[in-house]
Amino acid sequence: MTKFLRNSWYCAGWSTDVTDNPVGIKILSEEIVLFRTSDGTLAALNGRCPHRFAALSLGCIKGDLIECGYHGLQFDKHGVCRLNPHGQGKVPPRAHTRSYPAVERDGALWVWMGDPALADPADIMDLYFVGQREGWTGVTGYLKINADYQLVIDNLLDLTHATYLHPNTVGVDPEHSLGASLSYDFKTEGNIVRSNYTFRNSPPTALFKPFYPQERGDIFAFMRWEPAGALLLDISTTGVGMPKGTGVHMPSAHLIVPETEQTCHYFFALSRDVELDNEAKTKTMGEVALSAFIDEDEPVIHRCHELMNGAEFFELEPAILETDIAGIQARRILAKLIRQEQPVREAAEAA
Amino acid sequence: MTKFLRNSWYCAGWSTDVTDNPVGIKILSEEIVLFRTSDGTLAALNGRCPHRFAALSLGCIKGDLIECGYHGLQFDKHGVCRLNPHGQGKVPPRAHTRSYPAVERDGALWVWMGDPALADPADIMDLYFVGQREGWTGVTGYLKINADYQLVIDNLLDLTHATYLHPNTVGVDPEHSLGASLSYDFKTEGNIVRSNYTFRNSPPTALFKPFYPQERGDIFAFMRWEPAGALLLDISTTGVGMPKGTGVHMPSAHLIVPETEQTCHYFFALSRDVELDNEAKTKTMGEVALSAFIDEDEPVIHRCHELMNGAEFFELEPAILETDIAGIQARRILAKLIRQEQPVREAAEAA
Amino acid sequence: MTKFLRNSWYCAGWSTDVTDNPVGIKILSEEIVLFRTSDGTLAALNGRCPHRFAALSLGCIKGDLIECGYHGLQFDKHGVCRLNPHGQGKVPPRAHTRSYPAVERDGALWVWMGDPALADPADIMDLYFVGQREGWTGVTGYLKINADYQLVIDNLLDLTHATYLHPNTVGVDPEHSLGASLSYDFKTEGNIVRSNYTFRNSPPTALFKPFYPQERGDIFAFMRWEPAGALLLDISTTGVGMPKGTGVHMPSAHLIVPETEQTCHYFFALSRDVELDNEAKTKTMGEVALSAFIDEDEPVIHRCHELMNGAEFFELEPAILETDIAGIQARRILAKLIRQEQPVREAAEAA
Repeated sequence: MTKFLRNSWYCAGWSTDVTDNPVGIKILSEEIVLFRTSDGTLAALNGRCPHRFAALSLGCIKGDLIECGYHGLQFDKHGVCRLNPHGQGKVPPRAHTRSYPAVERDGALWVWMGDPALADPADIMDLYFVGQREGWTGVTGYLKINADYQLVIDNLLDLTHATYLHPNTVGVDPEHSLGASLSYDFKTEGNIVRSNYTFRNSPPTALFKPFYPQERGDIFAFMRWEPAGALLLDISTTGVGMPKGTGVHMPSAHLIVPETEQTCHYFFALSRDVELDNEAKTKTMGEVALSAFIDEDEPVIHRCHELMNGAEFFELEPAILETDIAGIQARRILAKLIRQEQPVREAAEAA
Repeated sequence: MTKFLRNSWYCAGWSTDVTDNPVGIKILSEEIVLFRTSDGTLAALNGRCPHRFAALSLGCIKGDLIECGYHGLQFDKHGVCRLNPHGQGKVPPRAHTRSYPAVERDGALWVWMGDPALADPADIMDLYFVGQREGWTGVTGYLKINADYQLVIDNLLDLTHATYLHPNTVGVDPEHSLGASLSYDFKTEGNIVRSNYTFRNSPPTALFKPFYPQERGDIFAFMRWEPAGALLLDISTTGVGMPKGTGVHMPSAHLIVPETEQTCHYFFALSRDVELDNEAKTKTMGEVALSAFIDEDEPVIHRCHELMNGAEFFELEPAILETDIAGIQARRILAKLIRQEQPVREAAEAA
Repeated sequence: MTKFLRNSWYCAGWSTDVTDNPVGIKILSEEIVLFRTSDGTLAALNGRCPHRFAALSLGCIKGDLIECGYHGLQFDKHGVCRLNPHGQGKVPPRAHTRSYPAVERDGALWVWMGDPALADPADIMDLYFVGQREGWTGVTGYLKINADYQLVIDNLLDLTHATYLHPNTVGVDPEHSLGASLSYDFKTEGNIVRSNYTFRNSPPTALFKPFYPQERGDIFAFMRWEPAGALLLDISTTGVGMPKGTGVHMPSAHLIVPETEQTCHYFFALSRDVELDNEAKTKTMGEVALSAFIDEDEPVIHRCHELMNGAEFFELEPAILETDIAGIQARRILAKLIRQEQPVREAAEAA
């Protein structure tokens, strides 16, 4: 069965990624082209020209239309061919390409890959700290992960890996954290999984240290996953014994988008609520996060993907720890949602 | 069914490509080795040594024989092993490799991949302007295209793409060509397809500009395709209203040779009939053409191939324009010829 | 049927390759991790963590245990999880990974990939000249070959290729060896194949020349293959007419280890019994050998693999010369041993 959930909003870029030219991105193994009409509205079409199958992302924008760079056919935001520049200019009936519901919000671009009738922008994750929001400053970024996207969700829903994989970036070195104590709890509400970690009396991570001068503090790391691949990590470091929400607050979004069955896009946004004008610290904050993702996470996740060698996760009979609960529940919810959206006949065969 | 036509002459290189050493090239997914016997005659053999399957192209020439570089077996131009240097020197019956009819003409090397009994050198495309022919000067070259060869034939048989893809090299920028008018007609004669374009009152292309000083002219671009992949493009730029053949003449050959189902060789020759001694302009002419093919055509065609994702062209239900007629006819002729040369049983099954 | 013999010792590295950190290597398409316990004892485990399938080679050593770098599970040399650092610390029953019999001897690390009950260290090839043995000096090294491992065994069991492929390194240029004479004989004893070459009155190879000043000599090159992929080449150059064993002696081991069906590891050791303290000559000796393997053998063998295009060797109906006897016998012995170790049902189906 497919590994992809179609009825879902997927991040396809940051607002600044799409300006005057079309931009291509592969999502769920499907070629998508993004562009803006003359008033700046985002449009998303299947990125393969229906004429000779050229990539529309290699074309250009003419007013409200996207022009194929190969033979000049022009399409509107609904994917309808509006100009055939050749001969009599007749537009043949097959000259249309699929359009996708597309929304721009909070500095992020979202595309709905499933049934357009089911697309509800209210389902898009609320990135309240991104896109020039008052009271926040931060960075957005992107990396490619050479692995099945579910392995990245697994990674993010079990933050205990930060101690081992990220001791000098976004985690805490266990050798300097004697006396710290970790507690966690996992909750599933409908199709949303939460995974909350509280480290009491811990040294701050390298990411927080520039903003939190004390040697010890309480770290609250609350992760929230929404299918298919949107994760919101709300981290704050407070004085020891202080309630969550006081101290320094550094929320981040981790938007994991299947590119193929072997690769995924990882869009991230990371903001903070202190020292809003300190651009040097903002730059460093972005570099530390990106290094943690690219230099620390990606190689490990990529090798997990390789060592699984195409097998399904549960087929391999993993040893399951209590810290895996959130990841396991997310996998079950995803599998259920994917199964539910299959055509009736397929679903019957699967049963 | 295979995508390859076996009973056809394929260009395997330019005369200058094969000198003192054997040269390997893959054609129709088959390893070929080219070499010259002591009198310079071209020979073409299957390039896999029948002993231990080494690439004969890694060997060397000993007189009229090609010596395998691995264990020293020597083969003549018929593929017969003439020397086993080991022990008693007995040549085992399996020690032969297939030979292919090979012809050198007009500075090009041609190999016949099909039934040798059907190989007729008269069928080789007449490259009347290549190979030091009196009255012409020009360049030859090569590039690899990462796409099914038929996509390159499609490209060449529909020259309307030049306006969009090559406005600064071999095409005309539409913004500077107001007042120009294009007409075209397509003809099929037997298995040959012609696709003729006439641009009246057009600015000259960058390729012609150094040789044609007027601001406007009539461009005659006459393309002729011969199966499987030989195209001859006869372009001339004349004074407005003058007959074809006057003015500057710049014919070119585009010899498209399947390497595998995913890649093809593109041998090209481009000549002109003016300023024969101007070597600087010849060099620039070659650079402009190569850049158009490598920097403009290849990336688009390669992406078409990727976006087709292994599907057959007609299965994907392309939107067909009137400018596609020549390409469509070439595809149908190729399909017919490929079908006809299949063994009887296979052909019956296909019916 | 699989191409791999499981019940065999495979070289997994040189002693110096594994020190304070775990090291990963793929053998028979299986991920292995090597590490040393606190007393230096070698351990070999399946390198995929049973928890989330991370590569254990990315982890670190904690005393006698290997710690997974992803979530910190620790395993002993038997592959048993001894520490789950999370929550209650319960170790789930699936938290174990396979261990392999591992032996360190003569400076080489060996792993038994088959039934542990059949692992007998007495079957490991005797590398009497490696690992600081008295009376010898030399080098060890490694390269990757992009080909099925049996093609490398073929290569080594037919030394006549050295004349063609290695005339300036480990072979003799035929143009300078007029008057030399070669004789050879092949013997099979049980599952061991010997392939002995005697070149009388030959110029020395480039490898021997720095140690053997005469212009001519007798070269004795005695190759011994033990399944699956261990070859011992005993070469000596003596005065013309002198018995083998006099003169300069330069034995070498060639340990060919399947990585996948398309690639193999090539561990080599090369020693000599003269000028033991001349480190400059030892360095040169190693460079000449490595160059012969990497620059001369690998490209040819890799192309053989490509041109065989996945077919079985005998299916391709090779032309067999008398010099192929040893290689053919090794292939037959390997096929027999692989067949014998298949489960009974599989063996019955094959019959």
